[in-house]
Amino acid sequence: MSKFAPVRFVDVHLEGQFWRERLDTVLARTIPSQHVQLGRHGILESLTLPNPPPPLRFPRNDHDFTVQVFWDSDVGKWIEAASYALSHRRDADIEAKIEKIVDDLEKAQAPDGYLNCWYLQREPENRWTNMRDNHELYNLGHLIEGGIAYFLATERRRLLDILERYVEHVRATFGPNAGQKRGYCGHQEIELALIRLYHLTGERKHLDLAAYFIDERGRQPHYFDQEAAARGDDPRDFWAKSYEYNQSHRPVREQDKVVGHAVRAMYMYSAMADLAAELHDDSLKRACEVLWADVMSSKIYITSGLGPAAANEGFTEDYDLPNDTAYAETCASVALIFWAQRMLHLDLDGKYADVLEQALFNNALGGLSRDGEHYFYSNPLDSDGRHSRWAWHTCPCCTMNASRLVASVGGYFVSHSDEAIAFHLYGGISTEVALKSGKVGLREVSSYPWSGDIRIEVSPESPAEFALKLRIPGWAHGAKASVNGEPVATELSTVKGYLTVLRRWQAGDVVDLHLPMPAERIYAHPSVRMDIGRVALKRGPLVYCVEETDNPGGPVQRLRLPRQSHVEVRQRGDLFDGVVMLAAEATRLQDDGWGDRLYRTEPPAEDPVKLAALPYYLWNNREKGSMTVWLVEK
Amino acid sequence: MSKFAPVRFVDVHLEGQFWRERLDTVLARTIPSQHVQLGRHGILESLTLPNPPPPLRFPRNDHDFTVQVFWDSDVGKWIEAASYALSHRRDADIEAKIEKIVDDLEKAQAPDGYLNCWYLQREPENRWTNMRDNHELYNLGHLIEGGIAYFLATERRRLLDILERYVEHVRATFGPNAGQKRGYCGHQEIELALIRLYHLTGERKHLDLAAYFIDERGRQPHYFDQEAAARGDDPRDFWAKSYEYNQSHRPVREQDKVVGHAVRAMYMYSAMADLAAELHDDSLKRACEVLWADVMSSKIYITSGLGPAAANEGFTEDYDLPNDTAYAETCASVALIFWAQRMLHLDLDGKYADVLEQALFNNALGGLSRDGEHYFYSNPLDSDGRHSRWAWHTCPCCTMNASRLVASVGGYFVSHSDEAIAFHLYGGISTEVALKSGKVGLREVSSYPWSGDIRIEVSPESPAEFALKLRIPGWAHGAKASVNGEPVATELSTVKGYLTVLRRWQAGDVVDLHLPMPAERIYAHPSVRMDIGRVALKRGPLVYCVEETDNPGGPVQRLRLPRQSHVEVRQRGDLFDGVVMLAAEATRLQDDGWGDRLYRTEPPAEDPVKLAALPYYLWNNREKGSMTVWLVEK
Repeated sequence: MSKFAPVRFVDVHLEGQFWRERLDTVLARTIPSQHVQLGRHGILESLTLPNPPPPLRFPRNDHDFTVQVFWDSDVGKWIEAASYALSHRRDADIEAKIEKIVDDLEKAQAPDGYLNCWYLQREPENRWTNMRDNHELYNLGHLIEGGIAYFLATERRRLLDILERYVEHVRATFGPNAGQKRGYCGHQEIELALIRLYHLTGERKHLDLAAYFIDERGRQPHYFDQEAAARGDDPRDFWAKSYEYNQSHRPVREQDKVVGHAVRAMYMYSAMADLAAELHDDSLKRACEVLWADVMSSKIYITSGLGPAAANEGFTEDYDLPNDTAYAETCASVALIFWAQRMLHLDLDGKYADVLEQALFNNALGGLSRDGEHYFYSNPLDSDGRHSRWAWHTCPCCTMNASRLVASVGGYFVSHSDEAIAFHLYGGISTEVALKSGKVGLREVSSYPWSGDIRIEVSPESPAEFALKLRIPGWAHGAKASVNGEPVATELSTVKGYLTVLRRWQAGDVVDLHLPMPAERIYAHPSVRMDIGRVALKRGPLVYCVEETDNPGGPVQRLRLPRQSHVEVRQRGDLFDGVVMLAAEATRLQDDGWGDRLYRTEPPAEDPVKLAALPYYLWNNREKGSMTVWLVEK
Repeated sequence: MSKFAPVRFVDVHLEGQFWRERLDTVLARTIPSQHVQLGRHGILESLTLPNPPPPLRFPRNDHDFTVQVFWDSDVGKWIEAASYALSHRRDADIEAKIEKIVDDLEKAQAPDGYLNCWYLQREPENRWTNMRDNHELYNLGHLIEGGIAYFLATERRRLLDILERYVEHVRATFGPNAGQKRGYCGHQEIELALIRLYHLTGERKHLDLAAYFIDERGRQPHYFDQEAAARGDDPRDFWAKSYEYNQSHRPVREQDKVVGHAVRAMYMYSAMADLAAELHDDSLKRACEVLWADVMSSKIYITSGLGPAAANEGFTEDYDLPNDTAYAETCASVALIFWAQRMLHLDLDGKYADVLEQALFNNALGGLSRDGEHYFYSNPLDSDGRHSRWAWHTCPCCTMNASRLVASVGGYFVSHSDEAIAFHLYGGISTEVALKSGKVGLREVSSYPWSGDIRIEVSPESPAEFALKLRIPGWAHGAKASVNGEPVATELSTVKGYLTVLRRWQAGDVVDLHLPMPAERIYAHPSVRMDIGRVALKRGPLVYCVEETDNPGGPVQRLRLPRQSHVEVRQRGDLFDGVVMLAAEATRLQDDGWGDRLYRTEPPAEDPVKLAALPYYLWNNREKGSMTVWLVEK
């Protein structure tokens, strides 16, 4: 197994405009506004115990809100995102807000360590009676991630102490021994959080508990059956009908199809990959590989959206990828990034980084508006213009997944082992890594993803031999590299998507990498029936869409792109903070001459138009209107 | 207003093979098997009072069944269909079965006339407390239609007597006077049934009660609000959110958009058209015309399916006509036929007959299998092969709508006034009509819809002048007619879709009508975004589809039809009882060379294939497989 480990985001300085803008927006706008929204919607209040709880449904700001069992997790995720922000720059106001939350949690915590505000406030006697539906361990998982991030940013460990007490309670409650529950959470998350706690503390017991939850999942007799019976419920009355919904339909090592709720699946696979690495567990690794192959071959949108269906927020049949009703939850793509990063560090294989990048630049980034204060929960690939980002959501999970991702995005760029450095992403960063041979300063300069021209300055503190591995994305054909102007045999030296340059490096060495970025037409497998006769446009890692505001004159669904039409690349410095658009000669169906007819024997007339396409992640940041990714080809 | 009235189905003898086969199948198989299913699913049993009622959900034949508040209506509809069968040929066994039902209903009827088996058995104290949801008057409406049909077939009036007593109870219960409820049914149907009762009995009070229900609907204060409050419910908790669902969102004359549950809408518009005719109510006629224009211009499938959405079993937005998820309930198309026939008799305008025919030959006929014992509830225009007709349904409404339609289809062919005869449909019938000038025998000979060559023999008992009106369908271009071999100036003499031949007719006169029936390509309005870049095939009134069994080699969604490809007409005497198929040179997307990729830059290769298309109504009668109506054009 590779021993590459990611360089932490705090050690990676984002210098390129692309990520600088996103990070600044998240720090300046998203994180403060999310705290306001958590307050406005009663979520912060729900931590203040004892307190008469609000009714389960209450009107606020012209909407009906429902108190959610998973609100603790949203607070945890906000602490995590805010703490990543603090790692970039300390902020007394944000810290005071977190401290207030920690005060509340400290007061709320039961003497035995239990800490779930929903249950403590409403049904203290019913804790741990409905693991299937009620998210208690999921909430703890997100709080742990928040506590770790806050500790790393500030070295304040009060929150971590609270949560470690809670973890001890959980450890006492769950397990194989007499008097313990052989349960696990209906919504996976605690597993990967416990592994992070293990990474922080080095305490093996956290890893073991994570492994216990993963190993126990899906065993017979089924815990959720027993638990339902103990509540006096008929287990068959489970609304989702099948335990595929929460991936507990069979033991995880026997799972070979990606099913059910997409976010739960991705969080679980992330933990499985973590455990595979930590425990050298090949059966878990193999299960992950089989599941990876399944989702990638038949269940992922071109934007890396996952889970077509709203009904289960998840997966359906192979190749069922409807565009207008695509659920493709933002959280699922963020969680896919987590999983992909873990798979990448099991095997340094560019196929994982390709997906990581694809998810990052498309479905995940699209979840957050340009102004940093609006969010897509679902990410359709086709819209009649009625979709737009929410200022908030009854289930605000995606909001903090967007902010915690961007606030820590630097952590996805570079990894290193003792003798090698690997670049996964590009876009303008600087960092320093410690190899066995000594420290190496790195500076990567590019305007990626707008350009594939990348320069990397390699500055070891003293000359040293090590391997520099540069990811050559799967979409990049004919990549060229040179070291200090001397060409490298790029193709020969590229294995599994990484170009390896092994040499004795010295300060001042410069690597130039050229990744060709022509506009490309992408076609879906013919089994994706929704996309037959259709084409998508892509350049580099970016999937494009056509949006009505750039293509005025009616719904963009009426555009047809001739197969032979040349797709041009157009710099647009005036749009957003500079963007590369695509353009092509196309036609637009006219709607005149129809009278009141809905059907007729003559095809609609078509006008020639110049089609303009925008990166998908940027859609819905200007005037509302129709949008589509998959254009009708002619 | 025109004074045309339809010739009753009992007086129209179906001689052509097309309808003869359907009618024979329905008489021999559908109606007896439906009685078996009504018994097997506890529906007949539910009429037997007093009886301990079964639990609301019970397992039977490997399915869970839910006792439905509308089961009385299914019995009513079966009696209606079975009685139409008896009008064709008496059958002691069927009559005994109906008599048994009448016995049960007679015993079940409350002393005050009330007769709803669900309420009488379960919640007698709650009758008339939830008109919004619980179908009491809807049930009565269908029972009335059954009672009328049974009386007309057998002259037995016991069922009618029972129902008339019930109607008197309803009349006492509902109305504007003190102590009466100003209510109406959430599921319209009673209105058109009461008008049929008026037609049978001549008793004006039935017409008045129908008019009352129509006039009261949607008035403020809203009855369903008041009724919910009286039950102690919050009216805002109505699951469907809006009274558009049952078309009570505003008074009917103020409705100008077709909304909500499609079957309810169509039954209501049918009653409105009836009342417009009976009461010479121009405001109702205008409302019908506006609603007709709305649905026809933006809300009807090419197959005449209505209501795209399962969620409300009904209408959504203009031009929202998804193909694979099309709900397009069989009942809605049958009800559209009712409405269209009524509109046609308000104004003899071929546009109504065109829709009637389109609904009949496509969505409605498709609801019933070739074997006469399987049913489509929803009628998608695209299927991956998972759809197939049901042997029965928890909500069996569509099954008896199919059988009662086919058993009475003769009633849609011919109308007459005092001085004129109008042919609306063709397909081989004979009948006799009584004009002021005397009786006229008519025999129409054709293999319509397979051929547009039609011969009509006109045989007045003595020579007489009258107008013969022959419908020239909207799809027929270049129709030609002759009388005794002498050409008629067809185009000049055709007004609003009817060719009028006014002459002195005598026995032995023969009219020949030639309706050209080329294969046609049909395009949808560009606002129907699902059909952009797609084409449908049609010939005469029949919409075609491609089905996998005729196009083996993978999903038919992978077929592409070049725009310039000639569509051939092919007689297939060997298939079913003879059918005209269409064929064209096309291509099929290959799926080889993809490996495990879901997306790639090269378009899928295409193989040349000969595409074979079958009339839509016939699909899913052989091997299961994929099907589509809208082909990708290239």
